[in-house]
Amino acid sequence: MTNALEIDGRRLWDTLMVSATIGAGMKGGLCRLALTDQDKTMRDLFVRWCREAGCSVEIDKVGNIFARRIGLDPALKPVLIGSHLDTQIAGGRFDGILGVLAGLEVVRTLNDKGVQTRRSIEVVCWTNEEGVRFQPPMMGAGAFAGVHDVDWVLAQPDDAGTLLGAELARIGYRGEQDRDRTDIDCYFELHIEQGPVLEEEGVDVGIVTGGFTSFGAEIHFTGENAHCGPTPMKARKDPLVAAAILIAKANEIGWGYEPNGRATCARIEVSPNRYGIIADSADVIVDVRHPDAGTAAEMYREVLDTIAIATKQARVVGAVVKEWSFGNIAFDAGLINLIRTVSADLGVSHKHMLSAAGHDAYHVSKVAPAAMIFTPCRNGITHNEAEHIELEYTVPGVNVLLNAVVRRANT
Amino acid sequence: MTNALEIDGRRLWDTLMVSATIGAGMKGGLCRLALTDQDKTMRDLFVRWCREAGCSVEIDKVGNIFARRIGLDPALKPVLIGSHLDTQIAGGRFDGILGVLAGLEVVRTLNDKGVQTRRSIEVVCWTNEEGVRFQPPMMGAGAFAGVHDVDWVLAQPDDAGTLLGAELARIGYRGEQDRDRTDIDCYFELHIEQGPVLEEEGVDVGIVTGGFTSFGAEIHFTGENAHCGPTPMKARKDPLVAAAILIAKANEIGWGYEPNGRATCARIEVSPNRYGIIADSADVIVDVRHPDAGTAAEMYREVLDTIAIATKQARVVGAVVKEWSFGNIAFDAGLINLIRTVSADLGVSHKHMLSAAGHDAYHVSKVAPAAMIFTPCRNGITHNEAEHIELEYTVPGVNVLLNAVVRRANT
Repeated sequence: MTNALEIDGRRLWDTLMVSATIGAGMKGGLCRLALTDQDKTMRDLFVRWCREAGCSVEIDKVGNIFARRIGLDPALKPVLIGSHLDTQIAGGRFDGILGVLAGLEVVRTLNDKGVQTRRSIEVVCWTNEEGVRFQPPMMGAGAFAGVHDVDWVLAQPDDAGTLLGAELARIGYRGEQDRDRTDIDCYFELHIEQGPVLEEEGVDVGIVTGGFTSFGAEIHFTGENAHCGPTPMKARKDPLVAAAILIAKANEIGWGYEPNGRATCARIEVSPNRYGIIADSADVIVDVRHPDAGTAAEMYREVLDTIAIATKQARVVGAVVKEWSFGNIAFDAGLINLIRTVSADLGVSHKHMLSAAGHDAYHVSKVAPAAMIFTPCRNGITHNEAEHIELEYTVPGVNVLLNAVVRRANT
Repeated sequence: MTNALEIDGRRLWDTLMVSATIGAGMKGGLCRLALTDQDKTMRDLFVRWCREAGCSVEIDKVGNIFARRIGLDPALKPVLIGSHLDTQIAGGRFDGILGVLAGLEVVRTLNDKGVQTRRSIEVVCWTNEEGVRFQPPMMGAGAFAGVHDVDWVLAQPDDAGTLLGAELARIGYRGEQDRDRTDIDCYFELHIEQGPVLEEEGVDVGIVTGGFTSFGAEIHFTGENAHCGPTPMKARKDPLVAAAILIAKANEIGWGYEPNGRATCARIEVSPNRYGIIADSADVIVDVRHPDAGTAAEMYREVLDTIAIATKQARVVGAVVKEWSFGNIAFDAGLINLIRTVSADLGVSHKHMLSAAGHDAYHVSKVAPAAMIFTPCRNGITHNEAEHIELEYTVPGVNVLLNAVVRRANT
């Protein structure tokens, strides 16, 4: 390929390793939950790096950060590159932030080479992608795309009852203006694959064509406190039993749709959750996924049907208190084609794939052309502190991103 | 009955109502967990009341309180009356403390009437009966009886990792001397029934002949963090699934032994217990009970057998990390006979029964003659803030206690 631009891989890696010191976990990974002090430190550093690279920075009402490298024609809609800075509670050093820092590396490389683009380029950090501290996941991108109401997002509580909006204000990232969602040309997101395929097959880049459809719900069971000794089985209203039936059955539903279907309950909250006293409430979060949207909906229906069985057996009341869905999208054919062409031009091996994980790009794809680039991760391990990549796993993908962005930004 | 002594019911009730202000719960009951500030306040008040009633007070190494009203022959072994001051996390105002304050009321009544007894009488408060904050339950009585090693008890942690011994020292109830367990003549414990039988049948007093046998265990499952999207069912090691299978199956085991058998999991701790990340550990406390010791052991065996099924299905490792058992005892025939005789003499209706709940008396019965008196509680509701009794529910039982103790203390 003539005049192909190349990033500085060493600089990208050093930048990543600096970010990996912020919110360090117990086992070599990260615990940088959305809107905590650690998230603030990371955001502050990211904003400083963007300003040092000549970008102007804007924060929207839900704390999404937009860092703009101005183009030759500022009136044209910009090309966005983004992902998230928050991590899972026992997360890795690359999930999310690799895509944000790859965007920063694109800007830095263009600066180094003195390359101007017609369109502006914006590097974006979306608020609360992980959904660990506040549910649902991908909230910032969802609010930007109009999937979630901004006021509703700001009013979501964490476990301690602290509202998202209050935490945004506390860490200094509650902006005053919505970012105009119609004012973007397109959106690129680079992310580790979070699966083993690219590494196993020795392929450099996954071109993501769409996502698994995911349904999520929070289900609440209400029972009655009683003594676990004198209270006969027939007199019990035990919400933990209902929750256990649901969790075990959800797992069976997942197995029923192997190998592509997945069903998970990763969280249960029981009250009072103490020895000797039958609980009076139990709350479960369930998640089902399948590459086929109709099948995912069928799996979710099976989960909902289980609620009635569980409540009857445990003599409790059950209610779905929150529901969400994402992933039933196809990425933009033009961008997919562009990424494929650039990969071929650069001699970067590539294959098309679906994403089983949720990504900010899903929501953004509803308001603009969007696409994703996957890069390999070791053994597919993710949402685990042992998550790992090598620099050479990601350099080809970031070079594809850089050249695809430049081509698009010159249209 | 000639010369029967009678308590001052109004004074007993007023004393109970004062105690019910310490650690008040959200719904009219109590939350006075062992060795918290609330427990300290209650203990301090109890000690003050005992001293005002002329008792000398001793604290043993695990914080059990012994308040002695000296007898005519101080060399004779004393008669003990006791129960506990701690409550469940959403507990009632009578479970435990009724038995302690009934003992205090016995002392006060003897003082009022100028009655001396040959043997000394001791009112006892046992540490951590409920097992809410520290497991297992009935720890103080267990240490006294030599069922648990004192140093082991002192080293048990609460959820925050604070050790029982450190909390005892903090609240000023870590004594320096063990109380000699061979130096007691016998032990009486009065308690609300925690079941509906006495109220339904209009009987004043339950004479407890023994307990349901209970087996308890803490079971730990270890799995592996992973992303709930990209991770196929076959690649998962999900400890929450194992825990759910165990909880649901334990409930089935309980139903399999209806109406007398009970099986409960009231507590589950999952880590990290967050949306989007498969857990790496889950911890369940299971409890099975049956009036027949052999059947209880059979139920417990079924629970243990389930661990292997659960770990296999969820591809995790399971281990029993703590185990306990209580209740397989028969109370002292002589004391039972004495209580029955006194009840008949006082014209108090009574019936023999088993206790399905655990009580400090179980452990004490291993080192001295012991017996229990049950009094009615409304609708059998307990371990619930709505737990309730009327004064007239308990006065006959406390009068039986008073006269039985005096007769025994004069032998």
